[in-house]
Amino acid sequence: MEIKEMMRQEKVKPWLLQARFGIEKESQRVDLQGQLAKTDHPDKLGNRSFHPYIQTDFAETQLELITPVSESVDEVLASLTAVHDVAQRSMPESEMMWPLSMPPALPEKEEDIVIAKLERHEDVLYRRFLAREYGKRKQMVSGIHFNFEYGLDLVNELFHSQTEVTCIEAFKTELYMKIARNFLRYRWLLTYLFGATPLSEAGYFVDEDRPNEPVRSIRTSPFGYVNKPNVKVSYASLDRYSEDLAENVAQGRLSEEKEFYAPIRMRGGKKVADLFHTGIRYVELRNIDLNPFERIGINEEAIKFIHLFMLYLLWTDEKAPADEWVEQGNQINDAVSLEHPYEQTAYLEEGRQLFAEMKQMAAELDLPAAELLGNYQEWLEQPELTLAARLLKADEAEGQAALGRHLGKEYYDEAYARPYQLAGFAEMELSTQSLLFDAIQLGLEFEVMDRSDQFVLLKHGDHKEYVKNANMTSKDTYISPLLMENKTVTKMVLDQAGFRVPAGETFTSIEKAQKAYPRYAKQSFVIKPKSTNYGLGITIFKEGASLEDYMAGLEIAFKEDDSVLIEEFMEGTEYRFFVIDHQVKAVLLRIPANVVGDGKKTIKQLVDAKNQDPLRGTHHRSPLELIQLGDLEKLMLKEQGFTIDSVPAPQQQVFLRENSNISTGGDSIDITDEMHESYKEIAIDAVEALGAEISGIDLIIPDKDKPFKDEKDYGIIEANFNPAMHMHIYPYAGKSRRLTLDVLRLLFPELG
Amino acid sequence: MEIKEMMRQEKVKPWLLQARFGIEKESQRVDLQGQLAKTDHPDKLGNRSFHPYIQTDFAETQLELITPVSESVDEVLASLTAVHDVAQRSMPESEMMWPLSMPPALPEKEEDIVIAKLERHEDVLYRRFLAREYGKRKQMVSGIHFNFEYGLDLVNELFHSQTEVTCIEAFKTELYMKIARNFLRYRWLLTYLFGATPLSEAGYFVDEDRPNEPVRSIRTSPFGYVNKPNVKVSYASLDRYSEDLAENVAQGRLSEEKEFYAPIRMRGGKKVADLFHTGIRYVELRNIDLNPFERIGINEEAIKFIHLFMLYLLWTDEKAPADEWVEQGNQINDAVSLEHPYEQTAYLEEGRQLFAEMKQMAAELDLPAAELLGNYQEWLEQPELTLAARLLKADEAEGQAALGRHLGKEYYDEAYARPYQLAGFAEMELSTQSLLFDAIQLGLEFEVMDRSDQFVLLKHGDHKEYVKNANMTSKDTYISPLLMENKTVTKMVLDQAGFRVPAGETFTSIEKAQKAYPRYAKQSFVIKPKSTNYGLGITIFKEGASLEDYMAGLEIAFKEDDSVLIEEFMEGTEYRFFVIDHQVKAVLLRIPANVVGDGKKTIKQLVDAKNQDPLRGTHHRSPLELIQLGDLEKLMLKEQGFTIDSVPAPQQQVFLRENSNISTGGDSIDITDEMHESYKEIAIDAVEALGAEISGIDLIIPDKDKPFKDEKDYGIIEANFNPAMHMHIYPYAGKSRRLTLDVLRLLFPELG
Repeated sequence: MEIKEMMRQEKVKPWLLQARFGIEKESQRVDLQGQLAKTDHPDKLGNRSFHPYIQTDFAETQLELITPVSESVDEVLASLTAVHDVAQRSMPESEMMWPLSMPPALPEKEEDIVIAKLERHEDVLYRRFLAREYGKRKQMVSGIHFNFEYGLDLVNELFHSQTEVTCIEAFKTELYMKIARNFLRYRWLLTYLFGATPLSEAGYFVDEDRPNEPVRSIRTSPFGYVNKPNVKVSYASLDRYSEDLAENVAQGRLSEEKEFYAPIRMRGGKKVADLFHTGIRYVELRNIDLNPFERIGINEEAIKFIHLFMLYLLWTDEKAPADEWVEQGNQINDAVSLEHPYEQTAYLEEGRQLFAEMKQMAAELDLPAAELLGNYQEWLEQPELTLAARLLKADEAEGQAALGRHLGKEYYDEAYARPYQLAGFAEMELSTQSLLFDAIQLGLEFEVMDRSDQFVLLKHGDHKEYVKNANMTSKDTYISPLLMENKTVTKMVLDQAGFRVPAGETFTSIEKAQKAYPRYAKQSFVIKPKSTNYGLGITIFKEGASLEDYMAGLEIAFKEDDSVLIEEFMEGTEYRFFVIDHQVKAVLLRIPANVVGDGKKTIKQLVDAKNQDPLRGTHHRSPLELIQLGDLEKLMLKEQGFTIDSVPAPQQQVFLRENSNISTGGDSIDITDEMHESYKEIAIDAVEALGAEISGIDLIIPDKDKPFKDEKDYGIIEANFNPAMHMHIYPYAGKSRRLTLDVLRLLFPELG
Repeated sequence: MEIKEMMRQEKVKPWLLQARFGIEKESQRVDLQGQLAKTDHPDKLGNRSFHPYIQTDFAETQLELITPVSESVDEVLASLTAVHDVAQRSMPESEMMWPLSMPPALPEKEEDIVIAKLERHEDVLYRRFLAREYGKRKQMVSGIHFNFEYGLDLVNELFHSQTEVTCIEAFKTELYMKIARNFLRYRWLLTYLFGATPLSEAGYFVDEDRPNEPVRSIRTSPFGYVNKPNVKVSYASLDRYSEDLAENVAQGRLSEEKEFYAPIRMRGGKKVADLFHTGIRYVELRNIDLNPFERIGINEEAIKFIHLFMLYLLWTDEKAPADEWVEQGNQINDAVSLEHPYEQTAYLEEGRQLFAEMKQMAAELDLPAAELLGNYQEWLEQPELTLAARLLKADEAEGQAALGRHLGKEYYDEAYARPYQLAGFAEMELSTQSLLFDAIQLGLEFEVMDRSDQFVLLKHGDHKEYVKNANMTSKDTYISPLLMENKTVTKMVLDQAGFRVPAGETFTSIEKAQKAYPRYAKQSFVIKPKSTNYGLGITIFKEGASLEDYMAGLEIAFKEDDSVLIEEFMEGTEYRFFVIDHQVKAVLLRIPANVVGDGKKTIKQLVDAKNQDPLRGTHHRSPLELIQLGDLEKLMLKEQGFTIDSVPAPQQQVFLRENSNISTGGDSIDITDEMHESYKEIAIDAVEALGAEISGIDLIIPDKDKPFKDEKDYGIIEANFNPAMHMHIYPYAGKSRRLTLDVLRLLFPELG
């Protein structure tokens, strides 16, 4: 059966767009003026010898950002963006990433280009060899390596659509060898569209062997970083390919296999020879220049186009014997790479035919590609739309170096705009974003197993840990959160362990609770549902209650739960203690939504001003919530004799809410260092009594500065099994407590 | 301040009915003919040396059933009933409990009364001493010891209503000493109302020193089991009481303190001398005969009356010096106990006055007692209503021994009627009832922390374990049930660990799922919500689906969850493996609701007959559910060409449902022993990969007898983090698997 027919099969078609992606992207670290950084690789990024996502390439300044293998375009984009966020925010604040493939102006002296200070001596030796063989300057160019694998179901269905090849490994190898040859033949189209290295900066070329005019892509041209011309390798078969490579190494033309800088590499095992057992599993495209107009150097459209291009390479027949076919491609790419960016390409006709055939394929295979192909065909027809042309145009306006600086600064600002977010995962909970940030920074492998469920897998070597909501882990037992979820049970456990908890009772019907009225009528007490975690359904009676108010409070609480607690109300201030691994890592005071007057602004203006804080937002997407001016707030103002247009006196604090929840605009104030140690010990012991490793426990303390003496000095209100972490990490005032790091240290003590 | 005034305080009143109760109840084990049992204390009840609830008293046949300390009347009744259930169902099926205080006919030879075979030699020695001193026969009488403590808040509020006594321990001691004196003075009223030993059986009295006529209470009369007359102890103060006791022991009139058989004992420490440090914490009333008309020997009304009586003893003033006051009481009680049950008591006037004063107290203190007091006052006026009179009347009709037999058999039948229930806790989940049963049987201490939440505390010495839903424990981690709850994540974890799971995808919107239609249209597949556990929202397409049906299936699933899975449908039979502690303890086959024809009965009649099974009920209150004949069942019959009036052929199996859920009338069939070991290993390994200790994992297996060879031989459908246990414990067919015992063994490995 012929490949086109195989791809047209009904069983194959649903899987055609199934694929896996992985991107490696190099970037030079520069200062905010665009000068190559003089610092070492950032300490915060842990150990380069195992870091899966952030490495150094040739030079100490040359970051290599690596995504996990991803099952979709969205996923690979998200990961790459996230790794950028982490890399940027782990660098000194005076540094940014250079957005261009071509390096900024290089030092005059070659020795000022510092080879990456890797731990393994052989890695350093190899780089020294490259420096000697090719010079350091050429190594300073950056680009994207695009790893691509056809989906397993797709390959399987294709395999089962034919009978010639009986072993799936051999089938894959044939498939990918064809792709490689066709890629080499037609790769000029990618060079035309995505080439983005028209010009070099000072110090890249040190002799006259350089282009005289702007070109589409220095990097993928013969002026780029290429092997010597005597290195020839055939792609006719995996055998030939492997033999030729071995021969080149044997003859000393290459120091080792990986010195072979082909625009496409066959991947599967560690070495080429392994491919005979494993089959080729995927390919690595190495000819993509950085798109400087994108923060992460590439965008969704480009990835989707390359994906479609990879399907076309499978679809289309080879039209000449292997070596000849590849050689044609090399020559065309050399030519196209050196064309002037504003010029129509000499291969316009072949380009049109490629687009026509890709459209034809998309139509026959029901691939939704019309718009994408239409757009890029415009680029083919209008060279000024290509990346190289846009870059050249910008250079004419402000100079390439200035462009690099201002784009770099733009991306730098973007990374710092919402420091509590992790780009690519911004719709997850803040605490999970924080955890993922820290995990990437420390060099843990991560996999988001379920975004909407905040389910994450973290790995360090063979050690796996699953985490949900950033704090639900294997370190806690099943029963202890269940115990904390049930406020009645929590109190019983704490009471039996000798802690002071508010006296009270639990009722399962409003009638039974009504009968208890005489026991509470004249004391201060609280009515609350047995198991909610968001402060809903709670009524506080500080000075007793009429039967009517009592019944109203019961009704509110019974709306939230079948069981309701009535408890004594304890006087004092409520503090949240975040306990992890038998240590108090944060203590927080939450105060109700409020503004402080200046004698000039109205309450409304003060609220607006306070809401400008970038930490404030809505729907838990920010560490703090915007202060509202709704009915409840207006009522509260009215009770104090204000309207929203009143002007409070200087330093006058006006409260807009009675409850101190952050979710209703409250302020979070870290007071970890101010809380007396004796209360921290109580918090730790109480959490231990509950059998928990991680808990947010709320204590009422009349005087936090006075050491604990007897049980009247505190009361435990409740313990939370899924305590908010972002309010400690990004408090309104006081020190940030990076609790997600504590979670990671608990899970991976081997990180030290 | 005077006590009445203290009790009338507004701060005190709400707490007046606060109290703690504990009951110890003795019962002779007899065979179903009412002969004293000849067997040893049941093996199943574990070790008597630590069993907190089921002990032996004097004789090997004399069970002592003990409740945990309870905070309410309901609670103490529930516990006592439960302990009865466990005791009865732990005895040989040929034995029951004798419901009367007076023992059944005793053996002629004293040596045939076997002293309890206790482990500790000193315990045996003490019983031998008692046998010598009092004779074995008198020890064979049974009764109730009623432990009573005023609520802590009540005592506290009373304490704070006065200033004379400054230390709360001393205050309590004074309180309880007064109670003790008043109790001794007025206890005759309890003897009158609740005395229930009018007659003895053969072998109890061996000489002529016995009542000639029926009396109200042999047991609490001078013919009962009492100290020698020379043992005199004063209740004037704790000092006097303690000194007198010590003197009696020193003089050899008592072997040790506990040989002092007072109708009330002051409790607090281990010995009387400890009371000086601890204060008297509670009292033990020892003069309550078993009420033979109640399965557990006492009822709610009696407990509530005694409670009220205890408040009255506090309320009422003593009217004579201590020793005289107590002596009066002893004489009156001796007289009343020996009155004929049908006679008006000689102390009717004092009785009337007691009721009048109790009513007065109830009115002044807002205690809801009118009905209760009214009822018991009728007993005072009409002696035939008392227990002794009712018992005598029954004796006249059938003989006391026959009454004991038939009441005993009635209670025996009650204990076996619903073997899957634990009386007293029948509204809890079946699995929790089963767990509590096993815990009590093994002698673990238990506390139900929250009935509606199925939250239980179990203790063995210092070792505590909390359990929810009978399977959520400290042995599982927090993350692993969360992982099982999310079907997408479960599949990813199992897939990555190398297990076969159905291929498929997860969708978060109906639109995205619609686009995947071509991938599923022509294969067999299942649509299901990502995280429900009850089979809701699942649609199976065994032979592909039209777009319309596909969309309908999606809509059903999206009603249950925001995320929906589409998976390949695996051919084969689904089995539930219950895995605990790395072992498969049960394998279950569930088959849809069905009947098997006999050629005579209609389908409706067959359903009715099958529903007679006592294991079938409704709303998960029974291990199996009743088969319904609703619209769904009728439609299913119609599709097979039946109506409910059709008569299936002999042996013809007719299905009434497509789904095999037990909750819709399905049959559970234990096939643990038939399942090939190789699949059990897969289940164990998969649960291990999920990091779980307890899981119910569902495997599809085409042929359970064929050993596992390759991955086509099975598929894992899902793993359940809260797997039903009762369907394994009480299957429709096959062996019972007592999984709750396995849970207890996992939690308390020290039990062996």
